[in-house]
Amino acid sequence: MSQLPVPPALLDDLARVDEIILERVRPRLAVIRAAGEHILTSGGKRIRAALTLLSAQLGEYNLERVLHSAAAVELIHAASLVHDDLVDQAARRRGEVTVHTRWDGDVALMVGDYFFALAAAEMALAPDPRIIGYFSRGVMTICEGELSPVVNVAPLNIALEQYLYKIGCKTAALFEAGCKAGMVCGGGTTEQIETLGRFGYDLGLAFQIVDDVLDYVGDAQTLGKPAGNDLREGTITLPLIYAVEASGNNELAAVIDLAAPDETRVQWAIAEARRLGATDRALADAQRYTERALEHLAGFPDSPARQALGDIAHFVIARVS
Amino acid sequence: MSQLPVPPALLDDLARVDEIILERVRPRLAVIRAAGEHILTSGGKRIRAALTLLSAQLGEYNLERVLHSAAAVELIHAASLVHDDLVDQAARRRGEVTVHTRWDGDVALMVGDYFFALAAAEMALAPDPRIIGYFSRGVMTICEGELSPVVNVAPLNIALEQYLYKIGCKTAALFEAGCKAGMVCGGGTTEQIETLGRFGYDLGLAFQIVDDVLDYVGDAQTLGKPAGNDLREGTITLPLIYAVEASGNNELAAVIDLAAPDETRVQWAIAEARRLGATDRALADAQRYTERALEHLAGFPDSPARQALGDIAHFVIARVS
Repeated sequence: MSQLPVPPALLDDLARVDEIILERVRPRLAVIRAAGEHILTSGGKRIRAALTLLSAQLGEYNLERVLHSAAAVELIHAASLVHDDLVDQAARRRGEVTVHTRWDGDVALMVGDYFFALAAAEMALAPDPRIIGYFSRGVMTICEGELSPVVNVAPLNIALEQYLYKIGCKTAALFEAGCKAGMVCGGGTTEQIETLGRFGYDLGLAFQIVDDVLDYVGDAQTLGKPAGNDLREGTITLPLIYAVEASGNNELAAVIDLAAPDETRVQWAIAEARRLGATDRALADAQRYTERALEHLAGFPDSPARQALGDIAHFVIARVS
Repeated sequence: MSQLPVPPALLDDLARVDEIILERVRPRLAVIRAAGEHILTSGGKRIRAALTLLSAQLGEYNLERVLHSAAAVELIHAASLVHDDLVDQAARRRGEVTVHTRWDGDVALMVGDYFFALAAAEMALAPDPRIIGYFSRGVMTICEGELSPVVNVAPLNIALEQYLYKIGCKTAALFEAGCKAGMVCGGGTTEQIETLGRFGYDLGLAFQIVDDVLDYVGDAQTLGKPAGNDLREGTITLPLIYAVEASGNNELAAVIDLAAPDETRVQWAIAEARRLGATDRALADAQRYTERALEHLAGFPDSPARQALGDIAHFVIARVS
């Protein structure tokens, strides 16, 4: 299931996490079960669970201690995706129709709530009360991000500030929470937990920037959704911000103000963002956040787990090259 | 704030619960703060928090131990109301405009999620891991109920089964969870916890039946929304089920099948339900569930807390007479 560059033993542990999750989704109500299985089996890489497990491996690894935190981080992620798709009215995700499209908005709303509750039940099984604190703060941050769109494509400093806040809430906060939870399970010191949290946060920023770049340089097959989706939906991401800055005029910014830009305009904007070096500049930022993430790892003794966390960090960037 | 018939000391403790909740709703994002305060200050009775605190008082009462469970039960209730109003597209609740009406659906979705996360953070502060289990199961049950409408108004046995399942999920499960959590905080035995859970469940059934009867016999001012709301929205509740049974024909059942029944039809159906004794019959059921709830209390030694729980049970019924 996972295409992550992780050791075979970790794949086994990730399979255990998956078992736990799928086992939990046994509501009496068939529609919740079906929608739950639909989202959980539609090709996620389980990168958050992998980070949580590997974080624990930096300390004293005991799968049973960290399993529930790894399940919780994926359940929270799944819940937030379902609700995010509902807010965005997205028709597809990872090549599959979204829950609110296949069923309806009420089902998507309730399946998300159900997953949040399942995540809470998992957290209750975690060995340390700090963990539920990290994850609940993570969910609150995701909610704040969901209601904080990037509204300015220029000037650059304002646009960047909004964008970094947005992706920090949307993606980095949960990466951070997962890493911290894992490190707590591994018995890390307060300083180690904080440091690994920063690793997760920076890696989350890099991950989301790469995701946003892929929407400009990827093809529909790898993306599981058509490229140019963000432009079509009027979502401002880093490539557009840099492209507008580089172009020095308002033509590109105007594309996202169109209620439904025609396909020629979208393709032109994508080509412009690439021609102007905006996607490369965004990728360089992702590279920089990845390097900063790796610096946080440097204080930990060398180990297969540290190696694997580094491999995942490189994989995050490699997805686009 | 509370019009519950509870001892003055409990009102002080409920005020502490309210402080905790309002203190927690301090997100950076103004819209979540505003929407959160809107729902939390719009006149709830905090009956769930009162039940949780009083349940703890049946054992060894320590406010600090049970405070977070009482806050959690109200936060979960608030979250589920916001999402329920979104599913129902209800314009008003307790006389106030609903969150999705005043702001929009995305805000309602995220404020609900935010509250669920706040509840999880509160549960993490509770003294026993079973508590989070009760509450997360309660949320899952609410989700299942939300997607399980009463679809048959007849035959009676089918309609009753659907209705009791629905209100069990929607209301009784969280009453049950709150009572069990309180009893755990009070150091109750497993048997006491289960017994008090059944008290809460039966009281929850009575509470919801009375709510549904009020929609037929109350006036707009006490309801905070126009009477006949359920009929207008095509929602089948106990008074209608009994009215259809008593009328022996399909005229009443036809009203809820209308996309938008005119006001004359709604008022006629309300009058018929009362004339046919359907509201009285529903109330008698509520009375019966209340008595069953009180029987569960009988095994506990007499105490001011047991007395107060009994008073709340009688209050639940008295709301309608």
